[in-house]
Amino acid sequence: MLPLAIDVMGGDNAPGVIIDGARQARSELGAELILVGLPEVVNPLADEGFEVLAASEVIEMHDDAASSVRNKRDSSLVRCAELVREHRASGMISAGNTGAAMASALLKMGRLPKVARPAIATTIPVPGATPTVVIDSGANSEVMAPWLVQFAEMGSVYSSELFSIPAPRVGILSIGEERGKGNELVKEAFPLLEDCDRINFVGNVEGRDVMSSSVDVVVCDGFTGNVVLKTLEGAMRTLAKVIFDRLSSGEDGPEVVRLALPKLLPLMDELDPDSYGGAMLLGVKGICVISHGSSSPKAIFNAIATSMRLVDHGLLDKLVSAVSA
Amino acid sequence: MLPLAIDVMGGDNAPGVIIDGARQARSELGAELILVGLPEVVNPLADEGFEVLAASEVIEMHDDAASSVRNKRDSSLVRCAELVREHRASGMISAGNTGAAMASALLKMGRLPKVARPAIATTIPVPGATPTVVIDSGANSEVMAPWLVQFAEMGSVYSSELFSIPAPRVGILSIGEERGKGNELVKEAFPLLEDCDRINFVGNVEGRDVMSSSVDVVVCDGFTGNVVLKTLEGAMRTLAKVIFDRLSSGEDGPEVVRLALPKLLPLMDELDPDSYGGAMLLGVKGICVISHGSSSPKAIFNAIATSMRLVDHGLLDKLVSAVSA
Repeated sequence: MLPLAIDVMGGDNAPGVIIDGARQARSELGAELILVGLPEVVNPLADEGFEVLAASEVIEMHDDAASSVRNKRDSSLVRCAELVREHRASGMISAGNTGAAMASALLKMGRLPKVARPAIATTIPVPGATPTVVIDSGANSEVMAPWLVQFAEMGSVYSSELFSIPAPRVGILSIGEERGKGNELVKEAFPLLEDCDRINFVGNVEGRDVMSSSVDVVVCDGFTGNVVLKTLEGAMRTLAKVIFDRLSSGEDGPEVVRLALPKLLPLMDELDPDSYGGAMLLGVKGICVISHGSSSPKAIFNAIATSMRLVDHGLLDKLVSAVSA
Repeated sequence: MLPLAIDVMGGDNAPGVIIDGARQARSELGAELILVGLPEVVNPLADEGFEVLAASEVIEMHDDAASSVRNKRDSSLVRCAELVREHRASGMISAGNTGAAMASALLKMGRLPKVARPAIATTIPVPGATPTVVIDSGANSEVMAPWLVQFAEMGSVYSSELFSIPAPRVGILSIGEERGKGNELVKEAFPLLEDCDRINFVGNVEGRDVMSSSVDVVVCDGFTGNVVLKTLEGAMRTLAKVIFDRLSSGEDGPEVVRLALPKLLPLMDELDPDSYGGAMLLGVKGICVISHGSSSPKAIFNAIATSMRLVDHGLLDKLVSAVSA
């Protein structure tokens, strides 16, 4: 297996947490990695036995995506994508600037055959059930109906590989379950999805189905998908805080927290979107994981583990077979 | 104050819970109500001292909105809207078919001057802070940029009246906080909102801001708004269940539940979207509350209380002054 290129400079807590995650993946999974970053950061890591590539620039979180990829040619992010293009790496992982990661993957790796637009697939944890894949969750804020069919095809392969589901149930995100409900895009895409024999289409689904066991893949435009994701993220954060506050309130607070926390902490872990290491840009010629800016070492470890598994399963070949023209 | 027209037949548990809510509002708030429904349901209520109006038909939850309003002219829902049009009621409340409630309000009451499209305002509870108003949360699945300005103006008035906020912070729902991020609609609406001196525009907000104290009014198209609402609804339901399951698991489960429940139940209450009785269709010539199909008597009581307060505050006049052409 070719190594994975890791953007050591990307993320709110880079390079520290990225390197920690990489170290863990190498020792526990035997992961082969190329660490890409500023020379003073990566060169010492060569002594630990890592393959490294020095890059003289860093794309910052607030940099404009398109222009930074064009202008910072020797940035860690662009170099990662080039390693994939040059077949020196099977994939890249970055917790940096999402737009720039997407742009460098698109520009340097290019699209898989027939793919009109790559899309971001995100896994939403569902307590006690298989996570739901939301695609597109941010790559394309405006989409055409036929693209949604390709998103559905790619999302199906991804869900199937990641969670070993033979025929993932695919729904289109709408308002109202009945056929005919929704905006123009949904109404136009519905019959196309219905006619697609490569997916297991179950019709319209609603926002409440995202965090439920009623559907495996939710297809939508990248604007709506991103809003859904961020809404859930905000709700989880608000709730976790207020639940803890309430449990710890009052005289018996410390006692209640002592009893309740061991039961609730594993749940927090299950609900952690970092469980699969981040969002996956599907439709480019290589694995491309875009991890959360605030990724922990565990998230980076998980991103590496997930990527290795998907490379091993031949995800790209399966995507190529799955996508219709 | 003119009475409120109550659609006694609308909702999953109608007419029982609707009547219970109405009884409570009359005894506790001295609410003046006209109960509208099938004769065998409402006529006995006249003996209790309620004003009643018999209607021979009922629009069912699954009925097509437009055609049912056209064809079932003697339905409780249509009669409620007519009472408002005829100035016999100041507003209507229904927990029935949302589309049909919207259609009858539009058709019978008509739009306020200058309003291009009425929109649904929904209050999202935020623990420990003022609720967030999301507008439009379902009336218009396709919108034009200038409509969003009117939604912002109406949402501001609503938030201000309901929560006594002098200058509610208005954000437009987007992906990315920076100006220039978003889909075409957001990019077109942003400068229009910025130029509107009738609102306190704070720029782009993201999904995670909806359930936070960082914004008071979130403006969006009705498709995205409805998806946000349903996503939160689903997440809350899933989480409430799994948290209870985990707390009650294990040998000490019953003890932990006994201690934790009194702390968490009030929170469930605060997070209950029924706290304000339902969604409000803003921009028609009358108060129009569309309550959740599964509304409890408490939800109907709250809908009546909220409506009385808004009538008392002269909401409609304030909306007329607030909306720019």
